[in-house]
Amino acid sequence: MIKYEDLYNEVKNILSEKRFIHTEGVIERAIEYGEIYGEDKETVKLVALSHDIAKEIPKQERVNYAKDIGVELDEIEKTNLELIHSKVGAKICKDKYGFSDEMVNAVKYHTTGRSNMSMLEKIIYLADATEKNRNYCSQEFVVEMAKKNIDEAMFFILKWTIGNLLEQNKKIHIDTIIAYNYYNKK
Amino acid sequence: MIKYEDLYNEVKNILSEKRFIHTEGVIERAIEYGEIYGEDKETVKLVALSHDIAKEIPKQERVNYAKDIGVELDEIEKTNLELIHSKVGAKICKDKYGFSDEMVNAVKYHTTGRSNMSMLEKIIYLADATEKNRNYCSQEFVVEMAKKNIDEAMFFILKWTIGNLLEQNKKIHIDTIIAYNYYNKK
Repeated sequence: MIKYEDLYNEVKNILSEKRFIHTEGVIERAIEYGEIYGEDKETVKLVALSHDIAKEIPKQERVNYAKDIGVELDEIEKTNLELIHSKVGAKICKDKYGFSDEMVNAVKYHTTGRSNMSMLEKIIYLADATEKNRNYCSQEFVVEMAKKNIDEAMFFILKWTIGNLLEQNKKIHIDTIIAYNYYNKK
Repeated sequence: MIKYEDLYNEVKNILSEKRFIHTEGVIERAIEYGEIYGEDKETVKLVALSHDIAKEIPKQERVNYAKDIGVELDEIEKTNLELIHSKVGAKICKDKYGFSDEMVNAVKYHTTGRSNMSMLEKIIYLADATEKNRNYCSQEFVVEMAKKNIDEAMFFILKWTIGNLLEQNKKIHIDTIIAYNYYNKK
């Protein structure tokens, strides 16, 4: 598996300045959460660093690129091109950087979530949503929730995300609803 | 198949007064929509009359009742007992009243919706949501939307329903999201 120091400059070169600032925010937050929940620091850093590795592939190339590297897309992903970057990124992390399956899944599900997520998956999902440069979800009470009760924070962010997609009349990935229902303890 | 006149008193006896007032509102609205979209009036009336036939089976009996008559429930239906009445009602309409498959499906999907609904399914779904005794969705602009562009009205009600479930922290049935994505032309 690739080392964090070796991947750092590669990711910095691939991503725009704005995206890399976001990525650094995710790394910082993921380290905080990882320490609380006892996850391996190097693993957490590597996944956080590379979670958006495929985010800036031009939209018109995404579907073809996914096809080229053997990533299957579902109906929603074919029309909501935003979602593709997670699956494509996961494939790159597996093939090029030698990530373990758990690390690959943390990249793969960082946008939609899914039911019964591993601790690493939850840490990356929440770090992405709550990093300091985010407008709403970086608020102190959300970060504190993530530190105290990670499943409750998952529910909060999933609910917030679905509400946001609805407001914008955007399609909603089934995995996000499955995750929302799973973390909904009502 | 049972005749409307014969079923009318049976449904009136089964349902509470409040529920039967709702049912009469659904029949009225379904006839309006059915005329516009060229559906058979007797069929529309029969389905509207019986759509909530299983709604007042006591909650604690619903799961067992479903099992007894051979209705399979998914994970969400097992915890959200509200949803069970549509599947159970559909089975009663098939076995006891001799409804056709299309009529059975209009009862079955009147709560969640699904993708690619038949005209009859959409008429019952929308009549249920927009009958005159409903608080919000009976507003004139929603009824007019249903009369002018039935797929647009489907999207409006599905979106409104998901928002409502979210607000109440309730679980969301996957069929509702599949329907929302399907009727979302964005």
